[in-house]
Amino acid sequence: MNWISLVSLLAIAQYLCFAFCVAMARGRYGVKAPATVGDERFERYYRVQMNTLELLAAFLPTLWIAAQYWNAVAIAAIGAVYLVGRLLYFRAYVRDPGSREIGFVLSLTPIALLLVAGLIGIAMVWMR
Amino acid sequence: MNWISLVSLLAIAQYLCFAFCVAMARGRYGVKAPATVGDERFERYYRVQMNTLELLAAFLPTLWIAAQYWNAVAIAAIGAVYLVGRLLYFRAYVRDPGSREIGFVLSLTPIALLLVAGLIGIAMVWMR
Amino acid sequence: MNWISLVSLLAIAQYLCFAFCVAMARGRYGVKAPATVGDERFERYYRVQMNTLELLAAFLPTLWIAAQYWNAVAIAAIGAVYLVGRLLYFRAYVRDPGSREIGFVLSLTPIALLLVAGLIGIAMVWMR
Repeated sequence: MNWISLVSLLAIAQYLCFAFCVAMARGRYGVKAPATVGDERFERYYRVQMNTLELLAAFLPTLWIAAQYWNAVAIAAIGAVYLVGRLLYFRAYVRDPGSREIGFVLSLTPIALLLVAGLIGIAMVWMR
Repeated sequence: MNWISLVSLLAIAQYLCFAFCVAMARGRYGVKAPATVGDERFERYYRVQMNTLELLAAFLPTLWIAAQYWNAVAIAAIGAVYLVGRLLYFRAYVRDPGSREIGFVLSLTPIALLLVAGLIGIAMVWMR
Repeated sequence: MNWISLVSLLAIAQYLCFAFCVAMARGRYGVKAPATVGDERFERYYRVQMNTLELLAAFLPTLWIAAQYWNAVAIAAIGAVYLVGRLLYFRAYVRDPGSREIGFVLSLTPIALLLVAGLIGIAMVWMR
């Protein structure tokens, strides 16, 4: 499970980087806690972090469950696509929220694949 | 752990469905990213997703930890109650946020049970 | 993994307590669902819960991954620092959001340590 652990830790490191950008943006655009609105440029960083949290909560469990049933390196490779998708999403969203589609699709599709892979894996075990 | 995996994947699939409803509601009620407020009907869908994320982060770990100490099918059955509770919560909240109580209780109680089951399981191992 | 399970369950119990405080604050400061803004004192409780959710999603996976490679009791001890950090964060934030630094540092540092410990653990296995 080393590859699965590595992809998980990279996804968490990436997410913490996004959170760090939010903290930086708080200062830069003068949005004081507990507010999370007030300057649209701050809100973009904040929404990237929140959206990444929303997906991370689905990504990590599906990654580990799928890896119980399939080749771990193949599953980790699907997970790597998520990492790239999130990076593209971050870069697009802070520039123009309307252009976030590609990054979003590239981070949601791996999760959907892992979810289906997990369900097929369970079905295969039960039909054996 | 097949039953635990199945309940986990269903909980994630349900959560992603709620997230999909938020994306749909964005278009329907004209709330453009990065905003998450502006139309109360959109905010209801958004709050259902956020509340489900808030509980999912507690549900999945307690589910897997409790399953280390107790019969996996029994633990998965408790998890299934959470799935029903979340569905009722979704249906009630989008109609009238004030009527969300029953769905909320039915999704929080299984988590509390799993948490206590996990703690008792650890205590039993240490007192053996 | 009993110590890791215990720290995980305590972190989730703590998080659910924070969520309970938000529910209480809703009534006390008259912020009706689906709103999450309107009274700054409510927003403080809400932000503590959200920030704890944001960190919990990184804390639990790094805790379990690090425990695959290092002594479980030592890893659990690092996790215990997170629990103290979160408590300090909660107490400081609801009094004055500007004073949340120490609690934040004490909850983020253990996560960073666990993340690095996990990465070193993987590297050590591969270089063996």
